[in-house]
Amino acid sequence: MDSLPLKTLPDVLRRSPYHRLLGLEMVRAAPGEVVVRMPFREDLLAGEEEGGRYVHGGAIASLIDTAGDFAVIAAVGYDVPTIDLRVDYLRPVTRGALTATGRAIKAGRSLAVADVEVLDEDGKPVALGRGVFKT
Amino acid sequence: MDSLPLKTLPDVLRRSPYHRLLGLEMVRAAPGEVVVRMPFREDLLAGEEEGGRYVHGGAIASLIDTAGDFAVIAAVGYDVPTIDLRVDYLRPVTRGALTATGRAIKAGRSLAVADVEVLDEDGKPVALGRGVFKT
Amino acid sequence: MDSLPLKTLPDVLRRSPYHRLLGLEMVRAAPGEVVVRMPFREDLLAGEEEGGRYVHGGAIASLIDTAGDFAVIAAVGYDVPTIDLRVDYLRPVTRGALTATGRAIKAGRSLAVADVEVLDEDGKPVALGRGVFKT
Amino acid sequence: MDSLPLKTLPDVLRRSPYHRLLGLEMVRAAPGEVVVRMPFREDLLAGEEEGGRYVHGGAIASLIDTAGDFAVIAAVGYDVPTIDLRVDYLRPVTRGALTATGRAIKAGRSLAVADVEVLDEDGKPVALGRGVFKT
Repeated sequence: MDSLPLKTLPDVLRRSPYHRLLGLEMVRAAPGEVVVRMPFREDLLAGEEEGGRYVHGGAIASLIDTAGDFAVIAAVGYDVPTIDLRVDYLRPVTRGALTATGRAIKAGRSLAVADVEVLDEDGKPVALGRGVFKT
Repeated sequence: MDSLPLKTLPDVLRRSPYHRLLGLEMVRAAPGEVVVRMPFREDLLAGEEEGGRYVHGGAIASLIDTAGDFAVIAAVGYDVPTIDLRVDYLRPVTRGALTATGRAIKAGRSLAVADVEVLDEDGKPVALGRGVFKT
Repeated sequence: MDSLPLKTLPDVLRRSPYHRLLGLEMVRAAPGEVVVRMPFREDLLAGEEEGGRYVHGGAIASLIDTAGDFAVIAAVGYDVPTIDLRVDYLRPVTRGALTATGRAIKAGRSLAVADVEVLDEDGKPVALGRGVFKT
Repeated sequence: MDSLPLKTLPDVLRRSPYHRLLGLEMVRAAPGEVVVRMPFREDLLAGEEEGGRYVHGGAIASLIDTAGDFAVIAAVGYDVPTIDLRVDYLRPVTRGALTATGRAIKAGRSLAVADVEVLDEDGKPVALGRGVFKT
């Protein structure tokens, strides 16, 4: 696989049709650590009515998968498939952009582990994620 | 919360902006078990180029969250928030609709557990999911 | 690594000091599927007093790790390290042996996934497990 | 349930038959954070022979369950059952005590989430854990 330097990662992320569908953008890339932002949009909501006007758990899981994956890419320099993903939802989000910080905890020869923390616009934790990736 | 009879669930699912964004539709609803379908679309792909033309793991996680959630709704009769979600990716998907079968394994007074299996159009397993929901 | 035929697996399991510490024994081994039993013992209990007289979650996690691991061994024929493990506790166990059935869901060139179901003596589900193993 | 002050927690931990079986001891207890130690012992090993002389994943999972559980107890003041547990194994351990630091990330009215990091005697990360507990 081609090497992916850090400075190209925001473009690599944007070239994904699914990332564009959700509006994901990379805010920062450092070795083994990235920040990915998901702006608030009505079509990310779980429901239209009173009780459902919070960001869908699937959108948050997508943000976490992406931030974890790119944290590992930022550590190893090439694209890596997700082996498994776990998400803990801490509080519902009713407004404002979400910011996910992904960090590669381990980046071995065959496997990598990444941790992701998602914060809302007030800096409150919204969800935690952890994933295993194939390196 | 209002009671949600089985026959209304396909409509409830469709009323979610996020479900419409991904194109999710409910194929079947029985007590504690639902089938949710995600038709193949270019904008669910992880990448545009050769190596990335597979359905994004976040889209599959969204399908799993939705199928697990609605399996529990189909068991308890009201909307339930996801507490945590786990996804195991078994093989990449490059074409065709995905079908997720969600089953409520446990539906207690405070918590429910649901299992989800995602198959591709050939009936091959693509991903497994498990989630805990607040009842 | 040496090949491990199915019929040797009960002995392989018993040769582990930790399995002996917990009293684990293999009841059955078939290709990709094993049954492991953990007899009830006072020293597996979480507490001595009224509210704590149930089998410790760590003992159940150990049983699940072992059953999942041996299910993969029964599929591939050699020892495999656990990459990650997940356990869902469905109900507390206050008496009787536990029986864990492990099944290899996937056994690929680099990774395997196993599912484990733990039942109590009445056949009621006690816990569910899933793990990823390095093949 | 009775209130459990921080200073009583090392005793509470020691009163569990299963904790004594594994040799677990509490090193430190602060609000929402505990450190639990598992001394190295031959009977925690996965195997007796060359390739198996590492601490069994089930013992590490037990240590993580215990540290997470007590971190939540140290936050809320009473005993809490584990709802689910996840363990990521980072490297095998062949000698020396393990030290698990558990932290309550969230302690809500109905649920708590705890993170656990396990280090070996050289301070290297051995495993990561996360669990959901019923408060």
